[in-house]
Amino acid sequence: MRLMAKKYAIAIHGGAGKIDPAKLPHPLAYYERVLTEIVNAGAEALAGGGGALDAVELAVRLLEDEPVFNAGRGSTLNADGRVEMDASIMDGPTGRSGAVAIVRGVRHPVSLARAVMEQTPHVLLAGQGAGRFADLIGMERVDDAALITELRHKQWLKVAAGETTSIDHDTKGTVGAVACDAQGRVAAATSTGGMINKLPGRVGDSPIVGAGTWADARCAVSGTGMGERIMEHATARRVADLVELAGLSLAEAARRAVDELPADTCGLVAVDARGHIALPHNTASMFRASIDGARERTVGIGGIK
Amino acid sequence: MRLMAKKYAIAIHGGAGKIDPAKLPHPLAYYERVLTEIVNAGAEALAGGGGALDAVELAVRLLEDEPVFNAGRGSTLNADGRVEMDASIMDGPTGRSGAVAIVRGVRHPVSLARAVMEQTPHVLLAGQGAGRFADLIGMERVDDAALITELRHKQWLKVAAGETTSIDHDTKGTVGAVACDAQGRVAAATSTGGMINKLPGRVGDSPIVGAGTWADARCAVSGTGMGERIMEHATARRVADLVELAGLSLAEAARRAVDELPADTCGLVAVDARGHIALPHNTASMFRASIDGARERTVGIGGIK
Repeated sequence: MRLMAKKYAIAIHGGAGKIDPAKLPHPLAYYERVLTEIVNAGAEALAGGGGALDAVELAVRLLEDEPVFNAGRGSTLNADGRVEMDASIMDGPTGRSGAVAIVRGVRHPVSLARAVMEQTPHVLLAGQGAGRFADLIGMERVDDAALITELRHKQWLKVAAGETTSIDHDTKGTVGAVACDAQGRVAAATSTGGMINKLPGRVGDSPIVGAGTWADARCAVSGTGMGERIMEHATARRVADLVELAGLSLAEAARRAVDELPADTCGLVAVDARGHIALPHNTASMFRASIDGARERTVGIGGIK
Repeated sequence: MRLMAKKYAIAIHGGAGKIDPAKLPHPLAYYERVLTEIVNAGAEALAGGGGALDAVELAVRLLEDEPVFNAGRGSTLNADGRVEMDASIMDGPTGRSGAVAIVRGVRHPVSLARAVMEQTPHVLLAGQGAGRFADLIGMERVDDAALITELRHKQWLKVAAGETTSIDHDTKGTVGAVACDAQGRVAAATSTGGMINKLPGRVGDSPIVGAGTWADARCAVSGTGMGERIMEHATARRVADLVELAGLSLAEAARRAVDELPADTCGLVAVDARGHIALPHNTASMFRASIDGARERTVGIGGIK
């Protein structure tokens, strides 16, 4: 009962897009169960006095482990048939962040991002340099076979065969989390395999502070969707500026930031330091689950906007 | 006379930091002459009816060619003694942008960034993938010997010998440009070799839309300084939000955005669609030159803040 009074909150997403339950490889109930388990794990950590930064890392690690989402194991394949992953994490109270881009061969890009934040003077390490840093700190390395699922391989073969020089814009499955702990500290983290059949070296919004991820003293944001549009709008930072400079509520700011992007391109989860949650998307759907400061729960793929 | 009435404007920078004229490898007058020539070249293009996007690309190419600045030829060396460069460009009217990170072996990273914007569905290509894209579009490739100057090699040897696991924070020399053309369109571009002795794979603020570079319908910004702090503040986007959401003038917004960062970490050049220019820095100095819409000219290293 004592812990129940504290206004911790957490929200997670598993990607935004046009989600047709009839075409999903698993029943919708499966996704709802997975999302519920992961949001509950994050909430338990917060209820036990855990910090927001630890909670978002934990939630994103669990999402990375879950092969139905496009991050960690289950990542999409690039035009070379390889896995290159992007991730970032940001701590609201300190404003510190860490990120990795197009990194290969790690199970948990979000934890490598946190190591960049905590063990280097840098914010973002990309490519082979990110891999060398993983080796340097003794993080377990895996080969692509450990990250690629049969489903992703089939999906890539289809896209690569049909559009050898183009890009499939089906970006569903990027994962992210935002949390507010009992001390009112917020944090955000995002992780993805990126677009199917993307050019090798392509970096999306997920590892970009201000685009796919943001956290400050007031609020935290993790985005998903068409990464290039989110980067060109610096959407996560925009939510925070709409709260701070335009005086909007978190819900109003998050809604407006999403609506500033082209239709069908963006969804996000956001939390403020009082435990409010916002889950807007301008796509048909977004996999998400949340528990806000008033203990309201949501889980599902959202409705049509 | 006809052209004189049009309110085009341009500003360039060559990095912010503690610039001690007595310790520079050339007399201060040399830098002033180079900056004047380059800002004049950009202004001529604008006076002849050229667009802001072309003008900022031109100015940054000239800055990349000039070995005294840390971009293109004259870039700093990373911890491996290699050159890895970051650059970006953004077009205000369309909100489109392109960027490259830790790219090797190109003379003009800013032009590769523009090609990413114009010839791919992506915003940011990093590492070997960026190099492969350069090859794909037929851009000339050069080896590090063509980019490394004797001065940069000596500087790196000194830093690497003294602090093998640390980073030299002397980031002077990143280059950038912002412009407003006669039609009131603005654009921004930034290019850098990054920090001396940086970890391989380190990406700074220069290729990050919203951090080192921003352009929208109202204003354009190019930043320089401690990249990690600029990334964690999304400074370039912040200037635009302070103009739009807080109703500040460009000068007020640029000043405030810089002052939100720790002392001695950031400078920027900004222009709005009416040809106003702002050149704030919270470092001791910043190499810069500008011609604003009222034909006021500045050139030099700025004063103490």
